[in-house]
Amino acid sequence: MTFHARNAATGETLPGEYHDAPIAEIDRVCSAAGEVAPEFAVLAPERRAALLEAIADGLGAASENILARAHLETGLPLPRLQGECGRTQLQLRQMAALVRDGSWVDARIDTAQPDRKPAPRPDLRRLLRGLGPVAVFGASNFPLAYSVAGGDTASALAAGCPVVVKAHPAHPGTSDLTAEVIHAAVARCGLPAGVFGMVHGAAPEVSLGVVRHPAIAAVGFTGSLRAGRALFDAAAARPVPIPVFAEMGSVNPVFVLPEALRERGAAIADGLVASFTLGMGQFCTKPGLVFGLASPEWDAFGAAVAAKAQAVAAAPMLHAGIAENFARGCRELAGVEWLATGTARVARVEGAAFLARPELTHEIFGPYTLLVTVRDTAQMLTLAGALEGQLTATMHGTDVDFAGAAALFDILPRRAGRVICNGFPTGVEVVAAMTHGGPYPACTDARFTAVGSAGILRWARPVSYQGYPDAHLPEELRDANPRGLLRLIDGKLTREPVMSARSV
Amino acid sequence: MTFHARNAATGETLPGEYHDAPIAEIDRVCSAAGEVAPEFAVLAPERRAALLEAIADGLGAASENILARAHLETGLPLPRLQGECGRTQLQLRQMAALVRDGSWVDARIDTAQPDRKPAPRPDLRRLLRGLGPVAVFGASNFPLAYSVAGGDTASALAAGCPVVVKAHPAHPGTSDLTAEVIHAAVARCGLPAGVFGMVHGAAPEVSLGVVRHPAIAAVGFTGSLRAGRALFDAAAARPVPIPVFAEMGSVNPVFVLPEALRERGAAIADGLVASFTLGMGQFCTKPGLVFGLASPEWDAFGAAVAAKAQAVAAAPMLHAGIAENFARGCRELAGVEWLATGTARVARVEGAAFLARPELTHEIFGPYTLLVTVRDTAQMLTLAGALEGQLTATMHGTDVDFAGAAALFDILPRRAGRVICNGFPTGVEVVAAMTHGGPYPACTDARFTAVGSAGILRWARPVSYQGYPDAHLPEELRDANPRGLLRLIDGKLTREPVMSARSV
Repeated sequence: MTFHARNAATGETLPGEYHDAPIAEIDRVCSAAGEVAPEFAVLAPERRAALLEAIADGLGAASENILARAHLETGLPLPRLQGECGRTQLQLRQMAALVRDGSWVDARIDTAQPDRKPAPRPDLRRLLRGLGPVAVFGASNFPLAYSVAGGDTASALAAGCPVVVKAHPAHPGTSDLTAEVIHAAVARCGLPAGVFGMVHGAAPEVSLGVVRHPAIAAVGFTGSLRAGRALFDAAAARPVPIPVFAEMGSVNPVFVLPEALRERGAAIADGLVASFTLGMGQFCTKPGLVFGLASPEWDAFGAAVAAKAQAVAAAPMLHAGIAENFARGCRELAGVEWLATGTARVARVEGAAFLARPELTHEIFGPYTLLVTVRDTAQMLTLAGALEGQLTATMHGTDVDFAGAAALFDILPRRAGRVICNGFPTGVEVVAAMTHGGPYPACTDARFTAVGSAGILRWARPVSYQGYPDAHLPEELRDANPRGLLRLIDGKLTREPVMSARSV
Repeated sequence: MTFHARNAATGETLPGEYHDAPIAEIDRVCSAAGEVAPEFAVLAPERRAALLEAIADGLGAASENILARAHLETGLPLPRLQGECGRTQLQLRQMAALVRDGSWVDARIDTAQPDRKPAPRPDLRRLLRGLGPVAVFGASNFPLAYSVAGGDTASALAAGCPVVVKAHPAHPGTSDLTAEVIHAAVARCGLPAGVFGMVHGAAPEVSLGVVRHPAIAAVGFTGSLRAGRALFDAAAARPVPIPVFAEMGSVNPVFVLPEALRERGAAIADGLVASFTLGMGQFCTKPGLVFGLASPEWDAFGAAVAAKAQAVAAAPMLHAGIAENFARGCRELAGVEWLATGTARVARVEGAAFLARPELTHEIFGPYTLLVTVRDTAQMLTLAGALEGQLTATMHGTDVDFAGAAALFDILPRRAGRVICNGFPTGVEVVAAMTHGGPYPACTDARFTAVGSAGILRWARPVSYQGYPDAHLPEELRDANPRGLLRLIDGKLTREPVMSARSV
């Protein structure tokens, strides 16, 4: 089957024809990744860093074309896309720095104890190395930062894993232009072409074909619960199961505590509307659920949110499917009171009714949020405790509020990957301390993050070397520590060389 | 259904009657774990460490009874069980030390940048915390060190996860005595009983019932590929899938290179026989496959291995099922030449025949190994490259051998979790640099290890705290660093307090 890209604003067909990759093409691309994987896994870190930087440079040089096409395909405004392109380059450069620094391999050395009784202890050294080819499924809402050259690709390449991207069918032209940049960077760095491959596909069979290919060793996905779970199930059912990190969105609950509501309800209302309508609400961290105690201030808050939301200007959504799902999702919500029904939608419901209707906790992707009027603190805690896994959870409160909200401080970190005080969940910083992930259904494996330097850990496994001759050890583990890494030697973190006797 | 323990040496029924836990009992035990999980996840580390040490102390105090029963149920000699009991206590104490040190939580702090443009950067801090209740399925071959109070239990408790053990039906009495020790330690430490629970079961339904229980958050398993895969499949099919670390054994290939064979073939033969017959070959790291180049020395090596093996004295196997599987596994092997057929069995086959018969790479649990006569180095590399995932892979060689074996140094770390030079795979050191795991089918998730301090990472997930008031942060992340942890602050590892401004 062939398909075309569409102008997100007008629905018109854009130039370019794309086809669902047939099984032979999937096999060719995945096999090529598998063939180069051993070599790429042990490539000098400096060369992997150079590749990541070459991709970042290439994106910068080609950004005018890429952004123009992305603007047409996604309807996202150019300034937003410029920011996203900067973020994409930042992610690649941060991963390059991580690889160049090298300490991410978590090198551990336990030196030999030749005189230990009853048996000598051998020399043991371990580090992390890449799992093998990673299949990356980009998100429609981040055509650059979580797509072809996005965070999953950057972290996988950094870990020493070749990447096979299944391009998102909503921005195939942007994907092709980005893939060209990566192909050129791979060639310029003198690396084999199999280090990066891409296939197109609008049919689920293409995605499943990639996940089931025996050369694929892990999967990174950003998108819907339905699609993410389908890939997870396919990966788990393989003869050789493989890990799947699927980030599948969230409703990102916000709790507005009473004193904060009284003291700065208007400011919180402003911030909330800005957050849930940002980019037409098409963020997985969009706050889609807001809890507050029944009170005149809460009524005023609802009115302020509604007024602000009603004034939000129309803008195209990412693609027709998302626009349709958004309209249907809002249309089908029963038993809620609508406060704003323009471009941005705000509904309200009582806590008891909310508790009785689990479908109200489902994500509606787009500029929509639901205000839940809570009877009392006890009911707020009940509602918090009943939440499914979330990417984020947020509290707005004063010191007095927080002093009385100890239970929320207990509950929310159990339900979410990131808990926020007096802020908003949109805006995911690319830093070491970021967790972008969380308990299911936010994510298929809460032990990892999609954003920040720890994202590399999704694609690596430990290997231990016992009694190895120094010359045959990976450089990171050699006595002399030629890379100057921070290593855990006999329980102490140090950049010193190994001084002890090796063999037993 | 009820079942009994049997004397492994005589087959006689031992005192005590055990029953397959009905669903109501599974629910009660798992729910109790779920109820205390939130509290246990944030329990002061000192108290978690004290619990681990109390269990270790209790094992020491009760060891006479426990070892006597374990000896009857498993047939393992008392000195071996004494060693295993010591190892079990060591594992618990090491985990206590890890928890007390605290740096395992991998604390990361990125301080606020209030003046960043276009938007201020918030303060972000993250640490690792326990996933929730862990279901532990002990191994029959380590009735102490990989059973009720074994490595999985120790690491899960250390991470702050309550534990539900499904006792192995081959040593239910040992399991009960060990569980008593843990229950007493939990009570003595003033912790709620739900922190540790155990159910018995010989029927698969009990295991599946535990894995499917909604309160269970992760699974640790040591045993056969068939049972491990069944639990993995059940966990992946849950409405809320959970991670499974299943260590499922391995054939642990050994490559004997030519000069080493010439120079010290007899010593390698001695070491090999000691390793593959240790504990009647009932180790997941037993070397079950040995490759050598066709030569007079290789023939002599085979003869030496056979002679040594033929002299191995009979000893009971762990239980009747293992003994039967071992006998059948050996009986059904077609097309091999038998060199030793006593208590310990040695077979030999040509490389080409081996390649054509994939069933020869399957693990036969017990004192058996297969010598594969390889035509030349190229064939050895082909055979190495065709191996499935392994816990370990071993090379015996001289400097000259190794200089010519570069390809093996490339291949083996891709196939195994631990690669050994001039040693034997049995003997799994409990150290930070150990990897006991590996690519499937050795393990369901190669990104983790069952043994050593990194084992704790199986049961923890990162949580990020954004813009939090200092007083509400976990102690590990507070400005003053009251626990004195090594933390990554703005990219630098340090034990210093946080000096920068927090809020934005």
